[in-house]
Amino acid sequence: MTDLEKSLALIRRGADEIIREDDLLQKLERGKPLRVKTGFDPTAPDLHLGHTVLINKMRHFQDLGHHVMFLIGDFTGLIGDPSARDATRKPLTNEQLAENAETYRQQVYKILRRDKTEICFNSKWGNALGSAGMIKLAARYTVARMLERDDFKKRYAAKQPISIHEFLYPLMQGYDSVVMKADVELGGTDQKFNLLVGRELQKEEGQEPQVALTMPILEGLDGKKKMSKSLKNYIGIDEPAGEMFGKLMSISDELMWRYFELLSFRPWDDVQRLQKEIQGGANPKQAKVQLALEIVERFHGKAAAGKANDEFIARFRQGAMPSEIEEKQVAAYGKGIPIANLLKNSGLVTSTSEGIRMLKQGAVRIDSERVEDNAMTIAAGTTHVYQVGKRRFARVTVK
Amino acid sequence: MTDLEKSLALIRRGADEIIREDDLLQKLERGKPLRVKTGFDPTAPDLHLGHTVLINKMRHFQDLGHHVMFLIGDFTGLIGDPSARDATRKPLTNEQLAENAETYRQQVYKILRRDKTEICFNSKWGNALGSAGMIKLAARYTVARMLERDDFKKRYAAKQPISIHEFLYPLMQGYDSVVMKADVELGGTDQKFNLLVGRELQKEEGQEPQVALTMPILEGLDGKKKMSKSLKNYIGIDEPAGEMFGKLMSISDELMWRYFELLSFRPWDDVQRLQKEIQGGANPKQAKVQLALEIVERFHGKAAAGKANDEFIARFRQGAMPSEIEEKQVAAYGKGIPIANLLKNSGLVTSTSEGIRMLKQGAVRIDSERVEDNAMTIAAGTTHVYQVGKRRFARVTVK
Repeated sequence: MTDLEKSLALIRRGADEIIREDDLLQKLERGKPLRVKTGFDPTAPDLHLGHTVLINKMRHFQDLGHHVMFLIGDFTGLIGDPSARDATRKPLTNEQLAENAETYRQQVYKILRRDKTEICFNSKWGNALGSAGMIKLAARYTVARMLERDDFKKRYAAKQPISIHEFLYPLMQGYDSVVMKADVELGGTDQKFNLLVGRELQKEEGQEPQVALTMPILEGLDGKKKMSKSLKNYIGIDEPAGEMFGKLMSISDELMWRYFELLSFRPWDDVQRLQKEIQGGANPKQAKVQLALEIVERFHGKAAAGKANDEFIARFRQGAMPSEIEEKQVAAYGKGIPIANLLKNSGLVTSTSEGIRMLKQGAVRIDSERVEDNAMTIAAGTTHVYQVGKRRFARVTVK
Repeated sequence: MTDLEKSLALIRRGADEIIREDDLLQKLERGKPLRVKTGFDPTAPDLHLGHTVLINKMRHFQDLGHHVMFLIGDFTGLIGDPSARDATRKPLTNEQLAENAETYRQQVYKILRRDKTEICFNSKWGNALGSAGMIKLAARYTVARMLERDDFKKRYAAKQPISIHEFLYPLMQGYDSVVMKADVELGGTDQKFNLLVGRELQKEEGQEPQVALTMPILEGLDGKKKMSKSLKNYIGIDEPAGEMFGKLMSISDELMWRYFELLSFRPWDDVQRLQKEIQGGANPKQAKVQLALEIVERFHGKAAAGKANDEFIARFRQGAMPSEIEEKQVAAYGKGIPIANLLKNSGLVTSTSEGIRMLKQGAVRIDSERVEDNAMTIAAGTTHVYQVGKRRFARVTVK
């Protein structure tokens, strides 16, 4: 492979779409550092691994020598969501924004190189645009084309209200690209439309259009729904090392490969070698340990990762977790399910009274951690490995 | 009638809709002067009688003691039409705007009382709104409701492009009402939607909503299409007295009553008396003279109006215009029709060569004025009274 081919392969890794690859190739061929833009919500940053998919891709670009720009969309944050009549989305104050920016810095520099990252705020040019500038911007796009955006189309068809200012946000995002002279913009697949608006506004301004690179939305621990705090299927990047390690060890083998692709910096050749070894009979658990070690090390350092691994092994010594754990689903009673009912409904015990007895005896573990509270309720949307005694295991999702 | 009933009757005269009359009544009952807003285009003002329908209604409000505000929409004028890619709608300069405002002043003070008229410019608060303010404003309205506006609905259904900034204009107009604390806004029937947006924004701001009063669009000299410069069926308020008088004398009797309603300040009782006299056998021409005299006097003074009338009578003395003139329509050849062909096709002469001969002899008149140019072309969309010799008359519309 030539250097250019190697670069392209790294950029493509895990990407959903690159619009257009030809444009990207042309930009790369010039040999100059590209300006790579990624926008982030200015509200309280409490990043989980799902968010890091994009940040990892930024890191790929840094490793290839490009200039990455971490854009905090504070312009609209200062306005708040003007359509929200309740208090849930109040405008942020300048102090809150500064604080959030600082938290972002602390969090993202665990992945990005500090010296090669530019942090930008779009309030700098958003306010300067003025009301006349906003009208001019709005003149660049038609209502019909805006309504082609998937979510707008669905909401309009379902007669759900779309406020007119929602049409201005994609245009603002595109305008950010114009001002930042972005060569590439990264975003989730749900951002595709907005990234393309940037391309068009740049073209109209006589700029070379940015390459829109979309990354998939990461699945949560259940392997099905997107990772999200509200679905409780997430790993926060501030979670303690042991917890992070345990959660990563609880994922299915299938999801493990997905996480290798999107969360690991292990060279893809290496990952493929691991896959072959397992196809040849090796225990997938060893690969999972590798993944968990790498991720925990990223956020907590090498020593903490090693310790988390040791503790995990120690916890499991007495009742070694089998390499294949049965997947189960149980229905929640409303927002959750009492632990004893979960144990019964997933077949780990034969009755709720047996479940309560086992809990009292200290024979029940969730993700290898002992649980004794028999009044505990397990929230809907969660997935954990449940263990009763030494031999009974199940990975149970509460629906 | 009580004073309040008299006021209401004057305000209602000629109005298409008053939304809502109850609100208007409530406002009037307080006995305080109302703030009456009317918006005008900031582009080169070249007013014709069609525009004066609204200005006359403003005058009614002045006569009732209210405060009228003549709003020049220069905020958007300064931006230009940002969707116009060609040079036809360039942004106006401050100098042009000042000049247009001055021309407006000179023209409208022929109808409005100078001391009771406030001239406003919405650039004063439009720019101060800022880009954030514009987004907040846009959050007040949904796409679906905006698309309920008649013209938007039609264009959207016909897949004609609607630029997003066009959605911002009605909101800006509504915002004007908020800032101006308007009690009443006047507009043409085509403005109804925009006037109602003002009502809603005011309500949201905790203001009492303005009354939306729409006036019909005045028909032009043909009595069918709206008066417009491009249709050449208009009377400009800067036209010479004689021309204005002649054009007014050329209208049909039916249109005369419409003009009495919308253009005359003659008390409605008087107009009804004239109608009864004519139903009783009086010559409608005398009523038409009254109308023409009133309108010409408004723009040129009493002396000029009297002179125009005298000259009109003198011109007609030798071939007295009959009180009933036959209506004819002829088809244009493209954009117009040569005068001789018009005369033939309308049956005033038997051949184009007779037409040319009559022209050369000075026996042809258009709206009482002699025409000798046999190469003249009459534009499509026009209506005039044509006369050949002493006896042959027709009111001919070129289609």
